[in-house]
Amino acid sequence: MTSDSNTGTLKLAVIPGDGIGQEVTAEALKVLEVAAPAGVKFEPTRYDLGAERYLATGEVLPDSVLAEIREHDAILLGAVGGKPGDPNLPPGILERGLLLRLRFELDHYVNLRPSRIFPGVASPLAAPGEVDFVVVREGTEGPYTGNGGSIRVGTPHEVATEVSLNTAFGVERVVRDAFARAQRRPRKKLTLVHKTNVLVNAGAVWSRLVAEVGREFPDVTVDYLHIDAATIFMTTDPSRFDVIVTDNLFGDIITDLAAAITGGIGLAASGNINPDRTAPSMFEPVHGSAPDIAGQQKADPTAAILSASLLLDHLGYADAAAAIETAVIDDLAARTAGTTRRTSEVGDAIAARVGS
Amino acid sequence: MTSDSNTGTLKLAVIPGDGIGQEVTAEALKVLEVAAPAGVKFEPTRYDLGAERYLATGEVLPDSVLAEIREHDAILLGAVGGKPGDPNLPPGILERGLLLRLRFELDHYVNLRPSRIFPGVASPLAAPGEVDFVVVREGTEGPYTGNGGSIRVGTPHEVATEVSLNTAFGVERVVRDAFARAQRRPRKKLTLVHKTNVLVNAGAVWSRLVAEVGREFPDVTVDYLHIDAATIFMTTDPSRFDVIVTDNLFGDIITDLAAAITGGIGLAASGNINPDRTAPSMFEPVHGSAPDIAGQQKADPTAAILSASLLLDHLGYADAAAAIETAVIDDLAARTAGTTRRTSEVGDAIAARVGS
Ligand SMILES: CC(C)[C@H](C(=O)O)[C@@H](O)C(=O)O
Ligand SMILES: CC(C)[C@H](C(=O)O)[C@@H](O)C(=O)O
Repeated sequence: MTSDSNTGTLKLAVIPGDGIGQEVTAEALKVLEVAAPAGVKFEPTRYDLGAERYLATGEVLPDSVLAEIREHDAILLGAVGGKPGDPNLPPGILERGLLLRLRFELDHYVNLRPSRIFPGVASPLAAPGEVDFVVVREGTEGPYTGNGGSIRVGTPHEVATEVSLNTAFGVERVVRDAFARAQRRPRKKLTLVHKTNVLVNAGAVWSRLVAEVGREFPDVTVDYLHIDAATIFMTTDPSRFDVIVTDNLFGDIITDLAAAITGGIGLAASGNINPDRTAPSMFEPVHGSAPDIAGQQKADPTAAILSASLLLDHLGYADAAAAIETAVIDDLAARTAGTTRRTSEVGDAIAARVGS
Repeated sequence: MTSDSNTGTLKLAVIPGDGIGQEVTAEALKVLEVAAPAGVKFEPTRYDLGAERYLATGEVLPDSVLAEIREHDAILLGAVGGKPGDPNLPPGILERGLLLRLRFELDHYVNLRPSRIFPGVASPLAAPGEVDFVVVREGTEGPYTGNGGSIRVGTPHEVATEVSLNTAFGVERVVRDAFARAQRRPRKKLTLVHKTNVLVNAGAVWSRLVAEVGREFPDVTVDYLHIDAATIFMTTDPSRFDVIVTDNLFGDIITDLAAAITGGIGLAASGNINPDRTAPSMFEPVHGSAPDIAGQQKADPTAAILSASLLLDHLGYADAAAAIETAVIDDLAARTAGTTRRTSEVGDAIAARVGS
């Protein structure tokens, strides 16, 4: 699939999830339907997964459901996570059992998170400059593997470990993807973000493979920042960034910060991409389920809608993807400070622009 | 030592380190001498440790030197780290072998990093509000323990691990220290920052001990943020923070971000504190050795000078510590945008204010 001329029916697994995930996913689907190129039909199948199902049935992601989801062309996900501190919801049970399990089992090794300050959008920074970069976050390794354990739990002698696993195989493939993306962008710049001066084992793998793979991309400029220094530049000079490649945990942190400085988590889209297409890729807003405002039509669906644009792009419909992005940019520019619209009104407005 | 009435000679181990560490430490010492209460004399012993010594001799921190340093009342450190990418300086050799070795061997389990927007200081944030919080970063555990390793190094089959070690013993003591600090502050608020939804083993220890120790401090309000969400609040609502307690790596990241939003790493001080006083505590600016501007009298020594204030406070000289802080605040307020002073001129100006 490389052009918008491919037609047919695309099977879409839809996992609205928890809280505002439900509301924003509805709007993303609305826009996706309008944006679909002529002859392309999305066939959505809804999977009720998340806190509600877990609390009612104890099920997080049954193997049979995972097998079904695997048979789709793409996945649209809303948000996963119950009420913070719910005693019936052990920390991590949904995150690790559902969201991260999907990312790992479907080999979403490129967690793609673009950051731009769109025209008319206010940044908390006084002088952010032109910001347009993309973070390529590794999605299947690092401290996210669920490796580690505890002894003497609940006692004064408890010892708990978390093991970050890093393989040359896993690092090389995501680094190569990041270089390829950098090469396609005007500035052709790649920044590795890590903490090589402390995490020397993992750091050595990342540094080596950036140097090695970099030889295949001689026109891409490479630099390096420690994660701590990267957070400084993110607030003092974010326009220095073009493509950032980083590990799973540093990517988690830096992309939330990037979302904040570009106008908020309500606008930050992401793709969990399997570039080898051995399994469906998954698209989701960076934000969480925000139980405090759930069901009130207060959430901004823009991040979910932009995630649908990434989905179209991944499936080869670059024009349709661009149409959504343009509609969002126009909608953002037309927003009036002080007025608030309901979640569905934002979706309607963007869908109308795409359809016009 | 609980009041400024203690007199005598205090043995100070001074480790200027690399790059601008040399210049800023000279100014910190200058101010420290002027600030010392009547009857108190600092006897500094200089230890040449860092990149230069390593490159010349292969020595990082000889055991005999560590033993000597241990016999001091406090340590003043500049910055450690050679030229980035120097092929003769393997990543981490100085950081792990010198800086972190001192923190670990001297049991600096409270890495204290205050953040304030001082009057007249510009923040990169458009509307930061009143910012005055302190990060209590755990200093002897987490992913900083040097645990982990690599196999098949340099091959496509390399696997590298980093192990985060977390003990109830280590977490409890730093959490208790953080609660005590929160209780002494007007807002009495403690925020735990972690990633309990992914790092469930370590997260469980932190969450449990914050809950348990919190029972001893019923007047302290407690909340929790994931590290990714914490970076958002740090840019959108930093005045929400009072005391943050967090692990070694998250603390590293959030304190650089905190330094950025409060006017830059040139102002951020830190104390590596052994609250049990079984070994000397160590005071250092948060910034690095900045080899690019080293030796040019361009560095701002304010962070080092404020670190000297933390040193005085730790040794029981609260009034002398406050005198330095006041002098710094006055100096900052008197700085004129667009004019630059040499490192020594800033030190002279602050020393003159302290002495007046
Ligand atoms: C919900 C959580 C497990 C997840 C992550 O840490 O990856 C989220 O923060 C994200 O960035 O997608
Ligand atoms: C130099 C480095 C090892 C150190 C750290 O990571 O702790 C520094 O960044 C700091 O914050 O003091």
